[in-house]
Amino acid sequence: MIDSTRFLSTAARSYQESAIRKTGALASRVPDLISFAAGSPSPEMFPWDALASITGDLLARRDGNVLQYGATRGYRPLIEQIIAHVDAKGIRTTAEAIVVTTGSQQGLDLVGRVLIDPGDVVLVELPTYSGAIAAFHNLQAALVGVPQDGDGIDVNALAEILRSVAAEGRRCRFVYVTPNFQNPSGRHDLLILEDDPYGSLYFEDTADVDQTRPIKADDEQGRVVYLGSLSKTLVPGLRVAWAIAPPAIVERVELAKQAADLCSGVFDQRIAHLALGRGVVSSLAPRLRAHYMDKRNVMEGALAELLPGRVRWQQPRGGFFIWMELVGNISDRVLFDRAVDHKVSFVVGSAFFVNGEGHRFARLSFSAPSQDRIREGVKRLAAAFTKDAAQ
Amino acid sequence: MIDSTRFLSTAARSYQESAIRKTGALASRVPDLISFAAGSPSPEMFPWDALASITGDLLARRDGNVLQYGATRGYRPLIEQIIAHVDAKGIRTTAEAIVVTTGSQQGLDLVGRVLIDPGDVVLVELPTYSGAIAAFHNLQAALVGVPQDGDGIDVNALAEILRSVAAEGRRCRFVYVTPNFQNPSGRHDLLILEDDPYGSLYFEDTADVDQTRPIKADDEQGRVVYLGSLSKTLVPGLRVAWAIAPPAIVERVELAKQAADLCSGVFDQRIAHLALGRGVVSSLAPRLRAHYMDKRNVMEGALAELLPGRVRWQQPRGGFFIWMELVGNISDRVLFDRAVDHKVSFVVGSAFFVNGEGHRFARLSFSAPSQDRIREGVKRLAAAFTKDAAQ
Repeated sequence: MIDSTRFLSTAARSYQESAIRKTGALASRVPDLISFAAGSPSPEMFPWDALASITGDLLARRDGNVLQYGATRGYRPLIEQIIAHVDAKGIRTTAEAIVVTTGSQQGLDLVGRVLIDPGDVVLVELPTYSGAIAAFHNLQAALVGVPQDGDGIDVNALAEILRSVAAEGRRCRFVYVTPNFQNPSGRHDLLILEDDPYGSLYFEDTADVDQTRPIKADDEQGRVVYLGSLSKTLVPGLRVAWAIAPPAIVERVELAKQAADLCSGVFDQRIAHLALGRGVVSSLAPRLRAHYMDKRNVMEGALAELLPGRVRWQQPRGGFFIWMELVGNISDRVLFDRAVDHKVSFVVGSAFFVNGEGHRFARLSFSAPSQDRIREGVKRLAAAFTKDAAQ
Repeated sequence: MIDSTRFLSTAARSYQESAIRKTGALASRVPDLISFAAGSPSPEMFPWDALASITGDLLARRDGNVLQYGATRGYRPLIEQIIAHVDAKGIRTTAEAIVVTTGSQQGLDLVGRVLIDPGDVVLVELPTYSGAIAAFHNLQAALVGVPQDGDGIDVNALAEILRSVAAEGRRCRFVYVTPNFQNPSGRHDLLILEDDPYGSLYFEDTADVDQTRPIKADDEQGRVVYLGSLSKTLVPGLRVAWAIAPPAIVERVELAKQAADLCSGVFDQRIAHLALGRGVVSSLAPRLRAHYMDKRNVMEGALAELLPGRVRWQQPRGGFFIWMELVGNISDRVLFDRAVDHKVSFVVGSAFFVNGEGHRFARLSFSAPSQDRIREGVKRLAAAFTKDAAQ
């Protein structure tokens, strides 16, 4: 056999494995592992009956278009549903501005391909989503982190960073933000890539729909590319998400997508279309908010009880995660190795930082495990904090 | 609104629309159009009952993994089925060499990303699949065409081209071939990307399974990257395909895929797994061969009857297309415009050539229209050949 590695492209030689996905692979090697790693939604909440009824209806009609190749932009009636769906978040848009993607991850990749030349600077939050780091890194972007303050990205730090990027003669076309309460483009000639998978999953004890208003809702200049998804609010196994962007950008994303996968799964899109149309997604949302808030409460309770003084965190107002700060001298990686010995996993904080920091943090996901498993997992984590407990 | 085109990457500025997809969009604008354009499979042959039974069973089990995120490599039991499926074609492989892709188009894109640096030469057949042209073009490859002889790629011409590529100091890592009866790597240090979506769809009057043996089946050196798909042999609306490659290449494809879409649709993969496991794909194959052979015969009969002396073609021994040569002075584009006036479409031959040639050809697909529509479409095409008939 020849050594085929010599045929690899420059970009491929520098690909890095996503820490989340790598941690996810542990599950098959460690029996009885409790995973606080992946942002997987709770299978307890999957709407089995509604989906069985939808797929049954779709296949009973024997309409060939349900299983045929489809338009690269996406199934038009689904796009109409998406327009209505995001209207509830304050985003007014039209079909010309939308392309359906194979998950939001494809949105990150395609928008990255359309905007990034190798060597370009891409600004990201500290911390940021590790799947975005992987997508932009694979496109040979230079990732530069922007600190966050209480409201989101620190706009003064952003201005300072942009000045130094410009002084070095480098180019920055966009800043990538996950839900955020500031519009960082303000006085800069930048696009914003806004990734909002958890927008509907706020917790009603501390947040409301107004606090999840996307930046895109106030995008009067056409500077915001917005990514939405059904992965967290319906199911992730149907890969249905969307990008909303200025039409000139969407046209290029469409061409990139033609060559990348022709079209997203048509059967998936038809199921998503009916799930939106029959109110499955909208009626599920309040139940998901309550479900995940309960799980957050269970995890917070267990952390407070079992790890007093060892960890600190800000109460999450939505989503799937507790962003946990490690008090004292332990690093994320040391804790991770010990945790796996105790059959519990999480994602190391440093996976979300592009500047080598983050080792005092761990991201714990409370979304997928049951409440009992969350308590048991935190118990194991507490044991992992005590060195000799590993014996 | 700002002009967002100034943010586009160099690659995005040069994206070209696929001729096939562009032609496909005509269908929504021209009522009663008969399309000989897209390589869409026949909806008459979709196995509705089997798929309804499979999706019903999958959702009745309430196994959360059916609708959850999945492994980037693909659903492991599906990969085992793929190993058995390609074994029947003579390909001996293992799970380490396989990655499931969101259609073969994604295989083209991901393999391209892993092998192509901007400016690299990629060799393709004359003619070749236009979706591959788009994928490699978007990655900024320099596409160079290799003529074909009766058996496939002209190996002498290939050697000559490789000499001149090397003399110019340019690099070529692979040659892209669609089903072919020659192994063009022979004496060259090249990889082969073999794209085989139609392998099972040979016509039993003129071909047999031995004549569709892939190059990959004799790949003792680990030089062949093989793409297979269920789009033509089950349904394309489930985006399930696979790449089989040396493990060092597959590892990089997996990393590219992590950042490109995390995983292919899990529900789609579970359906495909059961369709393979329950024998739906294998029992459908002989019926598809007969179905498409009948349609080929109808199209050939109509062409011979209605366009004598105007067109020439070699009888296809499998697949979905007649590659039609235009006799006389008419070009593919002129004929195309007239054909659309007569409510019939095809893909211009030049879309499949990377060297500006191909204007004496048209690709006619007989796969999707019914036999009656094929006859009616050829009738319209015959009218389009006569100038004044356009009135």
